[in-house]
Formats: sequence, structure tokens, C-alpha cells
Amino acid sequence: MKPIKVGLLGIGTVGSGTFNVLKRNQEEITRRAGRSIEIAMVADLNIERARELTNGEVEVVNDANLVVNNPDIDIVIELIGGYGIAKDLVLKAIANGKHVVTANKALLATHGNEIFKAAQEKGVMVAFEAAVAGGIPIIKALREGLTANRIQWIAGIINGTTNFILSEMRDKGLDFNTVLKQAQALGYAEADPTFDIEGVDAAHKATIMASIAYGIPMQFDKAYVEGITKLEASDIRYAEDLGYRIKLLGITKRTPEGIELRVHPTLIPEKRLIANVEGAMNAVLVQGDAVGATLYYGKGAGAEPTASAVIADLVDITRLATADPEHRVPHLAFQPAAISDLPILPMSEIVTSYYLRMHVEDKPGVLADVTRILADLSISIDAMLQKEPGEGETRTDIIILTHQTKEKNIIAAIEKIEALATVTGSVIKLRLEELS
Amino acid sequence: MKPIKVGLLGIGTVGSGTFNVLKRNQEEITRRAGRSIEIAMVADLNIERARELTNGEVEVVNDANLVVNNPDIDIVIELIGGYGIAKDLVLKAIANGKHVVTANKALLATHGNEIFKAAQEKGVMVAFEAAVAGGIPIIKALREGLTANRIQWIAGIINGTTNFILSEMRDKGLDFNTVLKQAQALGYAEADPTFDIEGVDAAHKATIMASIAYGIPMQFDKAYVEGITKLEASDIRYAEDLGYRIKLLGITKRTPEGIELRVHPTLIPEKRLIANVEGAMNAVLVQGDAVGATLYYGKGAGAEPTASAVIADLVDITRLATADPEHRVPHLAFQPAAISDLPILPMSEIVTSYYLRMHVEDKPGVLADVTRILADLSISIDAMLQKEPGEGETRTDIIILTHQTKEKNIIAAIEKIEALATVTGSVIKLRLEELS
Repeated sequence: MKPIKVGLLGIGTVGSGTFNVLKRNQEEITRRAGRSIEIAMVADLNIERARELTNGEVEVVNDANLVVNNPDIDIVIELIGGYGIAKDLVLKAIANGKHVVTANKALLATHGNEIFKAAQEKGVMVAFEAAVAGGIPIIKALREGLTANRIQWIAGIINGTTNFILSEMRDKGLDFNTVLKQAQALGYAEADPTFDIEGVDAAHKATIMASIAYGIPMQFDKAYVEGITKLEASDIRYAEDLGYRIKLLGITKRTPEGIELRVHPTLIPEKRLIANVEGAMNAVLVQGDAVGATLYYGKGAGAEPTASAVIADLVDITRLATADPEHRVPHLAFQPAAISDLPILPMSEIVTSYYLRMHVEDKPGVLADVTRILADLSISIDAMLQKEPGEGETRTDIIILTHQTKEKNIIAAIEKIEALATVTGSVIKLRLEELS
Repeated sequence: MKPIKVGLLGIGTVGSGTFNVLKRNQEEITRRAGRSIEIAMVADLNIERARELTNGEVEVVNDANLVVNNPDIDIVIELIGGYGIAKDLVLKAIANGKHVVTANKALLATHGNEIFKAAQEKGVMVAFEAAVAGGIPIIKALREGLTANRIQWIAGIINGTTNFILSEMRDKGLDFNTVLKQAQALGYAEADPTFDIEGVDAAHKATIMASIAYGIPMQFDKAYVEGITKLEASDIRYAEDLGYRIKLLGITKRTPEGIELRVHPTLIPEKRLIANVEGAMNAVLVQGDAVGATLYYGKGAGAEPTASAVIADLVDITRLATADPEHRVPHLAFQPAAISDLPILPMSEIVTSYYLRMHVEDKPGVLADVTRILADLSISIDAMLQKEPGEGETRTDIIILTHQTKEKNIIAAIEKIEALATVTGSVIKLRLEELS
């Protein structure tokens, strides 16, 4: 099948991330989409940098109109940002019958109604997974996964800059201005951080989520927006004394009178999972009347996380253009002809870390014997616990945490350990995963 | 447009949940799907109970063949379970050109290859969001939301019975058999809990996720399956001493040699979000090469959570039959003609709880004045902190947490409090959400 041709407007962080991921995972993405997805043209004011980032593999222009007017291009990805020229280009792409993928939350929150109306009249799609919570597929969850529910409320940590600052304020007991400077030095906050720290970015995203959840037009101008600039270290401390963490939340709630739409620092009970989302991570908690609470967590920003969302939209649009309706999304996420034959590994070959508990004579040399057995099989020890024997007891528990090794090595080690005269009974073995 | 007609095979817990949610949220679901979805026929061995559960509103039969052979039915929902008659009925529905929605993880894990092959040859869809992690849209996330990624590994708490038992064992320091009996009494474990406690149910689900993630055929027979029956309370305690929690995880990993597919009790660091998933909740952690780690959390079982997933599949299939490809999923999740006009509430009308910090003279009567002001505005106090004044200080901080009230009430209260002679400066106000 003919490849789907894509035009990129802007090749900054997200644009180059999109180019790199499309290239690196080309084979898998093609199998999943049913046809290949090619970046046919890139427009950027900085042509030299654009050529560098694309290794000269793509036609690069500095006039974005060449992309939106290009008859060979099926989908335009808008990554310029802001609501000036980006708006004109998006509307032009739509008028030319092209689908649009965008990460531009500011544009959608302020001009989304006009853009979606134009797209609907023209019969093209505008997709925006990348506009809210980076790589977390929250738009898809709200729009499709939770479609059976009346959404009661949504509360999200949807700005990584402010969540990073709040985590640092709490961890280190510092005030806002000090941490902001640190964040800027580390690249977690922009030189002009206004949109982030004043809550505007979060409000753009909350506006979009509210519209999806409640089927209302985008009304960013009606959102209440309060950032973190006035937060004092003492309030973070007092909140913790009372069992709460402070997060900048984007909140939308359905009530009989209407929809709440607000962004502001919020105390939340520390036992909630979402209260423990730290650093630049994002998380969105959704309460639906059928499913109850669901939480979606992951990286809210960054080149490749955001590219992951952009490409998910590209594949969605491509699948529609490609497959007949019954096969829109292949059952196993790959086109059936392309099922992989990677073997399932036998258990002896898997690699993980282990927890071992053994019951031993409390004698000198026991530990040396056990550690020698592990060392001979190249199994490293990460941690160890040795309990004192109880009153009148001569035996005790030893607990060992090993580093990663193959299951067959642990099985061999356990056999040898159980054969020691000083070891009674079986060695208890549990597997351990760091999940990092 | 003509309604989509659905046939239900089995109206137990999930079937009645599906019926109830489809009815309760009929208007919203119809707007999102583009046409109404009607349960046209229900087959169940217990006709009386089926009539009761459906209020006599639906044709009820006790022969499932009447459903799968009914020419008016577009989609068959298989909720019988197991891989005996359920398999025959699913294959027959497919042969009759009907789409299938199922929650049957056992059937798919063991006969999925045959079923998907038949569906592909016939050109119908088989959807199974409800088969893994209940209402959490994890299948959609793996298949669509994360489609740009090479999935590196997946680790899931995907059996609520065993997670409930492990939470209780840890909370109360009890052994497995004691907690199992409690779980059965509370309805968290079946009379015959084998599939759950031996890890078989989790292995069915892990098998399905591995197939979606890696594009491999279902190979349940190759999965390593170890449940929680041999876990001792002492291991849970030692793990905690070392900074770990023990969870029954379904794990699949991609390695150069092949795919790991295993279910077993696993120590995980207590600082991971997934280590703090308690009770009957589920959570799936996915590591993708572009997006990094994403986590999906929610109810893994229950009538309405599972129905939420079933109906998401129904709406997906319906949208395909209805809309032209460019409008498959309306931008704002409702058909554009049906955008709601619920107003965005002004901030004065929102309802939430509050944290108030005020600086006061350390004198008798100050607290009485403040609490009187709040009481007069019907604002209840949930908690209070009063710090001792510092050395030589006559003033101190008082922190109050209020119960829910309207923003305008708090603003009025603060105005009065700030007017008290004994209160210095402004009252700091932060909003508080319990998120329960």
C-alpha cells in the first residue's frame, strides 16, 4: 500500500522526537498501522537545524505554507505552538482537506471550537492526544475507554514544571523562588515560566479534558486559574502535619448547576496514589459513575513521550484510511499477516532478582558457605538480613536479596545451599523486580 | 439511524451491570456512539432471574443459539465464561457474521488464536477490553495509545482476589489460609478460588497482554504460573523490613532471546506507585521505549466496572458501523450536533473544602471568635492546628481545615476574620480535595 505522507510544522523538541521514534520503530509502527508512515516534508524557520535533525533524509523548507498546500501530504502535524500563525496554518490545512495532529493545548483551549467546526464541515480529523499529559493516552481514555460513563469529576497533575517545583519545595523545605531558579537551571522550567507557574498551561489542558468529558464547547476564558507563585514553605509543612500533600491540580466537576473548571494549589490526602506523583511526572484521576476511579500516570512532557502521543494519533488516522471498518484495529495490534514468532522463553532462562530465606545453624562459617555458593554461580548479593536466634534457639533465619541472574542459576544455587549440613529444610525463593 | 442490536449470552454479574449502565447512561452513550445501542435478546439458563434483572424489557430465552442465529442481532456479548460452550457460541456468532464482545480471558488465552483467525477470515471484530483489568482501558492503551512504542515490559496486578488477600496479610499479619476464609466471607474470593489464588486467572490476562504488546500468538500453555498459596506471613514482614511489598504480578518482558511470560509473587520496592495498590484494585505498569513508564489503575472487577469495558467495546464497534471514517470518533466525544450547554460555574459557586492559615494574638477568645464566624456561615471544621507562640512572641499561627462549602461562603468568612482585631494580616486560603 502507498505510504501515508505526513508534513511536520516545526522540528523542535517534539518534532525531532517524532522523527526519531518513527524511524527507530518504523517496522513495528508499519505493521500496526497497516501501511508505512513517512515524513515527506518539514517546515522550520531554522533550515540548517532541521536538516541536521533529519539527517538530510527529508525535504526541508522554511515556508510552512509549502507543507499545508502540498497535495501529496495527507496529515499535517502542527508543533509550532501558540495561537498566532499556528492557528492560520491549522485552518489552512483543514481547508485543503488534510487531517491535523497537534500538541498545541493553548491553541485548542482558545480556538478549538472554531477549529473543530471547520474540520467537521470539511470532513477531516483533528487529533490532539499530545496536547494533554504528554505520552499518557488520556484523551483516548476519556473519549473511548470510558465512554460508558457519566464522568463525575477529573483531577489532574498536568504540568510537570510546577509538580517538580512542589516536590522540591517539600523534599528540601525551600521557598518557591529558590526552587524555581533551580528548576530553570535543570531545564524543568523555561526562561519565561509564566504559563507554567501561573497555572495557565494546566488550565489549557483542563479546559480540553472538560470539553471531552462533558461534551461542552471549549471555554478557557471561564476557567479559574491560580498558580503556585504564592505558596509558602510553611503551608507545605502544615499540610503534611495534617496528613496532606499540596499539588497544582486541574479540576473539572459535573454538578446539577453546571461544570466546575478550575486550576489551583490543592491539599490532597497523602494516602491517595495521586498525592505520591513526584517530579515532572503527570497523573490524571477520573471518576466515572460505572467504573469508579481510574488513574493514568506517566511522563507529561519530553521529546519522545510527546512523540509517542503524536504517533498514536498518526496511526489512528492511518488505520482509518487503510483498513476496512471491520479491521480498523487489528486484534493483536499487528496486522495478522505480520505476527511475530519470538519464542516464549522457558522459565529457566528468565532473568530477575531474588529473595531467599533459609534456616541455618547459628555458627561461624555458615554465611561464608552460602555466599561462596552464590559467588561461584556469579550471583551478586544486594542486601542481607540475619535475625538473632530466639531464646534457647541455635538456628536462625538468613534473608538474602540477590542481584539479577538467570532462574537456572538460582535453582542450582538453592540445590547446593539446601545440601549444606548447616541448612535446615528448604530455601524459600521469591522473585524481585525493581520496576524502574 | 437504526439502533445497533445486541444479544447478551449470560446475564450474571457483568450482564446485569451492562444492562443497567446501558439504560442509565443511554442518552450520553447514544450521543457518543452516533446511534442507540439496544439489548435485543438475552439468553440465560435461568429465565426467571433474567426477566427480573431486565424488568421484562427485553426478550429472554434459555437457548443461546437463538441469539447467535438471530439475523437482527449485530453484536453478540459473550459473558458465560469458561471455554466449553462459550467457545462454540463465539465461533458460531462469528460464522454468522456477527461481531463479538467478550470478557472471557480463559477462552481467549487458550483458544484466542483460533477465534481471531475465524474473525479475520469472516471480516468481523472480536473485542475484549473487559477480559483484562476490568474497567481500566488497558487493552486500548496497549493496542492504540502506546502504538508508537516497542514495549519493553509489562507488570500488572491483575487479580483483585489475590491482591486483597495480600493486602490483608500485610495489614493484619495473618497467614494465607486465615485471610482466604475472610475473603470468601466478604465475597472477594469464590467458593472455589483456585483460578485466582493459583495465579491462573492472572496468567490468562498476562498471556493476552503479551500477545497485544508483542504481536505473538496466545501461548498460555507456555506461561509460568505460580500463585500465592505458599506465601508465609514472615516473608511479607521480612520483605517490608527490607523496603519491599509483595504482590502477585503478571509479567511479560521482551529480551533478545525471546519473551518472558510469568506470574508469581514478587517483591517490589515500596516507593513504586504500583506497590501501593491495595485491596481489590488492579494496576498495570507498562514500559515503552518512547514514552517510558505509564501506569493504569482502577477497579479490576465488579458488575459496573466490567460493564464499562464491555460498553466501550460496543461503542467502538458501533462507531465503525455508523460514522464515515473521518468522523469515526467525534472530536469532543459527542456527536457535534449534540454538544451540551451546561454552563461553566463562576468560581463563587464551586464547592470544596478549605485550608485556612491565620496569624492571631495568643489570647483567650480568639478561637471562639473565628469558629463563631465560620459557624454563622454554616462552615464546619474538620481539623485544627494551633502552634505555640515562639519565645517572646505573642502571636501564633492557627490552621483550620473546613468541611465542604461554597467558595463565596469562605470568602465572606475570611473577610470577617481578617476584620477581627486579634487577627494580623491576611488569611491564607488553599483548597482541599479528598478525591475519594
